[in-house]
Amino acid sequence: MGERLPEGTLVLAVDAGGTSCRTALVDFGGTCRGLGLAGSANPLATDDGDAAAAIVTSALGAVDMAGADPADVRLVLLAAAGGGHRPAFMQMISTSLGLRGVHAPVAMEADGLAAFCSGTHLGHGYVLVAGTGAVAHRVEGGRSIRSVDGLGWLLGDIGSGFWVGQRVVRAVLADLDGTGPSTGLTPLLVSAMGLQHLVDERDALNGRPRLVHEIGITSYSELPVRLARYASLVFAVPEDEVAREILDEAAAGLAVTLRAALADGAPGPVVVAGGLLTGAHGLRQRLERVLGDELPPEGLVPVVDGLVGSAVLALRRLGVDVDAAVFERLTHSVAACRG
Amino acid sequence: MGERLPEGTLVLAVDAGGTSCRTALVDFGGTCRGLGLAGSANPLATDDGDAAAAIVTSALGAVDMAGADPADVRLVLLAAAGGGHRPAFMQMISTSLGLRGVHAPVAMEADGLAAFCSGTHLGHGYVLVAGTGAVAHRVEGGRSIRSVDGLGWLLGDIGSGFWVGQRVVRAVLADLDGTGPSTGLTPLLVSAMGLQHLVDERDALNGRPRLVHEIGITSYSELPVRLARYASLVFAVPEDEVAREILDEAAAGLAVTLRAALADGAPGPVVVAGGLLTGAHGLRQRLERVLGDELPPEGLVPVVDGLVGSAVLALRRLGVDVDAAVFERLTHSVAACRG
Repeated sequence: MGERLPEGTLVLAVDAGGTSCRTALVDFGGTCRGLGLAGSANPLATDDGDAAAAIVTSALGAVDMAGADPADVRLVLLAAAGGGHRPAFMQMISTSLGLRGVHAPVAMEADGLAAFCSGTHLGHGYVLVAGTGAVAHRVEGGRSIRSVDGLGWLLGDIGSGFWVGQRVVRAVLADLDGTGPSTGLTPLLVSAMGLQHLVDERDALNGRPRLVHEIGITSYSELPVRLARYASLVFAVPEDEVAREILDEAAAGLAVTLRAALADGAPGPVVVAGGLLTGAHGLRQRLERVLGDELPPEGLVPVVDGLVGSAVLALRRLGVDVDAAVFERLTHSVAACRG
Repeated sequence: MGERLPEGTLVLAVDAGGTSCRTALVDFGGTCRGLGLAGSANPLATDDGDAAAAIVTSALGAVDMAGADPADVRLVLLAAAGGGHRPAFMQMISTSLGLRGVHAPVAMEADGLAAFCSGTHLGHGYVLVAGTGAVAHRVEGGRSIRSVDGLGWLLGDIGSGFWVGQRVVRAVLADLDGTGPSTGLTPLLVSAMGLQHLVDERDALNGRPRLVHEIGITSYSELPVRLARYASLVFAVPEDEVAREILDEAAAGLAVTLRAALADGAPGPVVVAGGLLTGAHGLRQRLERVLGDELPPEGLVPVVDGLVGSAVLALRRLGVDVDAAVFERLTHSVAACRG
């Protein structure tokens, strides 16, 4: 892939997400030379050991694909939920990579900042992420100087995948309980949980239908954030009133979060990331309608993930000037490696 | 206390709550002869061992106060969240009590049914409990034949202590985040969490004030249901608009739950229990205004807990006819033992 480079001029840029982990091996010119993939790498959604193993697997995959010398890697940068302050976790990754010949330091940045840097080479602007969680940042001088929401499933993440998924399950239980309207979400959730055999079951447990009981057991048997997997059901019944109300509230909630980040700030691009805002289902467009003139003329700038941004942050840490040309090269070569 | 009884005519009626555990030693005539108290006995809020220990402590306390012979106890009845289906837990209690001379079988009933039976000797009617959780039951033939909500903190418990407490914390975070209105709940919560020293702290962590960060850490460091402890803050600022809105929504949510239990049912008393509905702060009256004519003329019948009802259920299991006179005696003698 291109000209021979001077030694030690590669970075491993990791986007450690909750669903999967992606790593790009990038040179100082901004060209992606290899890409590696692995499973969930969010230590909050899995355990530290599994998350570290996914990161190492994807990093070694990228080195392999490029046919590069691991000794040429100068920095490993992890873009992960929350960013920083996890020395033991980073040490685990550093040690594993060292055993495979990658002796570079390991650094961490917040995934929201990496998402922002996936959308623009500018050092200022805004980003809204709505994946499993939801958070907005105002970026100035290449740093997040204001975070809004991102408070997790118990206290915030309004309009996130968890938030929508939780509302889906609650709406179905209200339908079955007689406390809410009938909804097309009910057969979808029952089927997603594999509980169709209980639909016509007349037997009750403590005065409650078996179906209601089992939906509860299924939901409580895993980490709360796993309810995010049911979020996509709202897009499957676009005409359903209950589903539409959930989406309207999600859009309204995300608008409030983004507005607080935008308040009194300088103009700049507004990048959006995460499955809820980048899918083909129209929630981004709904949010653009809600915000209208509050957005810059180009509207919301969607990015698929924080992989390009992780590379931008890695190169900048090593003194590379990531200008429009380098950014363009990064974006295209990462896309080419994704294939 | 009164005439000498035939041997083996006592029951231990336990009300195993999340905040505390109460046990009454009751004779077949319906007279409470001793009362014991201990800490949290809800295995969902603490662990099984601690919950079992609290139950045993309170039961032995009741036997002690009465100066009774433990061998005279014929049945131990636990009124606990959810009721039934916990054989290992009940075995633990049975074994511990056996070592102290109580060789009676241990049975379990749902706390909601016990609350109902604390309010009436009739076998049919309705009960709404809003403590840490929230649930309504329709009772017929002395059994719950329909349960509404009671789905726990992740999926339901609308209008419960957890639900209100979670909204209090969210409202305070929205205030501090700039995504919601300023509220008098903020200084109250900051003080309840012991975080006053951070109010004027200008330092930010990942673009977030230290105060917001620490409220998050405090909230996530315990079981979710523990947020219920902040519910009472809404009663401390009755003029605050945010607090009033939370209470209005709680009352509306509890009305929906109770209405679903009442729907198409026969007339009967409507008993209410749990801190949110029995305190002096007026939420019960607010709920009565919301429901109006849907309630029987006597309105909502408040009970302090499920202790009397646990005794009613225990006596009925042993064939005692708990009529109006026995019920009256139970109510008064339990109150007298509470002192």
